[in-house]
Amino acid sequence: MTASSFEQAARAVTPVDAAAAQAAVTRHNQLTKPPGALGRLEAVGIQLCAIAGRCPPPVPEPVTVAVFAADHGVVAEGVSSWPQEVTAQMVANFCADGAAINVLARHTGADVIVVDVGVATPIPSDAPGLLRLPVRPGTGNIAVQAAMTPAEARAALDVGTDVAGRAVASGTRMLVTGDMGIGSTTASAAVIAALTGAPAATVTGRGAGADEALLARKIQVVDRARQRITANADPLIILAEVGGLEIAALAGFIVGAAASRVPVVIDGVIAAAAALTAAAVSPDVRGYLIAGHQSSEPGSAVALAHLGLEPLLDLEMRLGEGSGATLAVPLVQAAAKILAEMATFDSAGVSSKNQPR
Amino acid sequence: MTASSFEQAARAVTPVDAAAAQAAVTRHNQLTKPPGALGRLEAVGIQLCAIAGRCPPPVPEPVTVAVFAADHGVVAEGVSSWPQEVTAQMVANFCADGAAINVLARHTGADVIVVDVGVATPIPSDAPGLLRLPVRPGTGNIAVQAAMTPAEARAALDVGTDVAGRAVASGTRMLVTGDMGIGSTTASAAVIAALTGAPAATVTGRGAGADEALLARKIQVVDRARQRITANADPLIILAEVGGLEIAALAGFIVGAAASRVPVVIDGVIAAAAALTAAAVSPDVRGYLIAGHQSSEPGSAVALAHLGLEPLLDLEMRLGEGSGATLAVPLVQAAAKILAEMATFDSAGVSSKNQPR
Repeated sequence: MTASSFEQAARAVTPVDAAAAQAAVTRHNQLTKPPGALGRLEAVGIQLCAIAGRCPPPVPEPVTVAVFAADHGVVAEGVSSWPQEVTAQMVANFCADGAAINVLARHTGADVIVVDVGVATPIPSDAPGLLRLPVRPGTGNIAVQAAMTPAEARAALDVGTDVAGRAVASGTRMLVTGDMGIGSTTASAAVIAALTGAPAATVTGRGAGADEALLARKIQVVDRARQRITANADPLIILAEVGGLEIAALAGFIVGAAASRVPVVIDGVIAAAAALTAAAVSPDVRGYLIAGHQSSEPGSAVALAHLGLEPLLDLEMRLGEGSGATLAVPLVQAAAKILAEMATFDSAGVSSKNQPR
Repeated sequence: MTASSFEQAARAVTPVDAAAAQAAVTRHNQLTKPPGALGRLEAVGIQLCAIAGRCPPPVPEPVTVAVFAADHGVVAEGVSSWPQEVTAQMVANFCADGAAINVLARHTGADVIVVDVGVATPIPSDAPGLLRLPVRPGTGNIAVQAAMTPAEARAALDVGTDVAGRAVASGTRMLVTGDMGIGSTTASAAVIAALTGAPAATVTGRGAGADEALLARKIQVVDRARQRITANADPLIILAEVGGLEIAALAGFIVGAAASRVPVVIDGVIAAAAALTAAAVSPDVRGYLIAGHQSSEPGSAVALAHLGLEPLLDLEMRLGEGSGATLAVPLVQAAAKILAEMATFDSAGVSSKNQPR
């Protein structure tokens, strides 16, 4: 049996380049600005150099947002106030260019790829451009059963890795995670709880608008699901037991990006669960991750802290689809251009700090 | 004697349109996303509608960043670790397209206008494109004397209002504040202390890299300057006594933007001092202000809170030049496009929340 594309990619990830990062630190101090005055933008520039292995780094463009859509059997527990059909309806909306992610991707010059990795109900249109790669029609109800089999999890991981690899092969130089799936914040909270050890109540949030009663039900469900996970369980077993098909695909996508040495901007709590999974399998993945924003979902902050990532934006967003990460794309590109295009003190004839007066 | 252009603009500012804001609230709830899921982006979209008087709002482009440069006599107190010549050298750098603001404006599609409103030393190049409108060669040392006369303050205010008016007349639909001046964070802190009542130690920061001793000296200087300000002093008297030429020009620029009914994105602590001054003269200006980012300078947070503004970005930046505000431009434009381009639940055939299952 040959290794799957995910497994190959996970083994192919190499650490980012510390020497290129150091060159970026040096260059930032030569540019016509007080040292450190560009704050977090400088840190992103350093990371882009480390990923690319050179300073200044290439500007990360073109950019592709991949929106992985799948359903969650756990909606049977009443953990969402939205009907399950909305997943399929939103896939049609993505393909018709009508959703927030379409507007934001067009605005930032990114392409959108929509992938059905396990939508449970019929997609109510031709859905032009949809990549139909379903592994199964939604997961099992994680309150009472495994989300999927380990083989199904591997299949979904492979879908994500393949999508990343194909995007990079066609010229993309930065990937952005997107997701759609009614019930997805429940599964993501379960994955984050299992991988970080955080209590269900700490990582479970209101998703797309849960009220108090619904939130309490979600927390109970997350707690029941994570109780089936033994200490030090394999991250792929956790994924299969309490995860989701789009979470798996995103984990594969993230590993695929890192294996291709391109930065991957992660969105909200679903992407954070996927990134935790990816980094648990292949720790060097962390160097390729850029946290686009701080989602309002509490599990996002827990997962990002666990990964050592600081989000670029904090706009109280909680939409998913890749919306927050896509809004961060211009910031990431700006960080590269600062290193590539600014004058130095020498070239511009500007006096440095603390020179003789 | 005819009213100055600043005085005319200050009287011409009208409140933003509450009905258009309400229309935006209604429309946000019809778009294919959970209500409120785009967080702060929705608030910006509502504000753009209120400014434009219609929903959806026009996308605010083209954009002009005006960088007002001036020197500060207070550098004689040793409040900066950079030589005063850096102001003039950076003006040359702006005009040669080598500074951070040039890179970031090009990245976001904004034009840059550089205005000498009072640089003290010779500008070491032809400085192509520089608008030479100096009021005086730097301010007086605010530790011991007035920064400028009230007539000079009015002249600098007029420069800013004129620059805003000309930019809008030539087609610009959003303005961004920029600034350059060694010593400017000291003067800005004094203005903010005087207008908000906050203690000098609360609003004074490290600027372009002050160490402990230098920071202590800055705080003393700010405290001495603000002691010359009587309670309930006229904001323009405060500006003349402890402000700066670029702070005055920016206050005029902000009022000019509001009088022309275009949004103005404000940058860091220098812009915040100017915005406080502008709003003290013409309170309806507030509706036109968008806080681009939270500068690391502590006075910025105090001033923004006083104005009731929440910054869009918080990237630990402290460069000035308009850099943080320019990075926020794509976010503001995205907020407009969300209202203009997203599908509604009806148009996309997506089920709303809480429908029958």
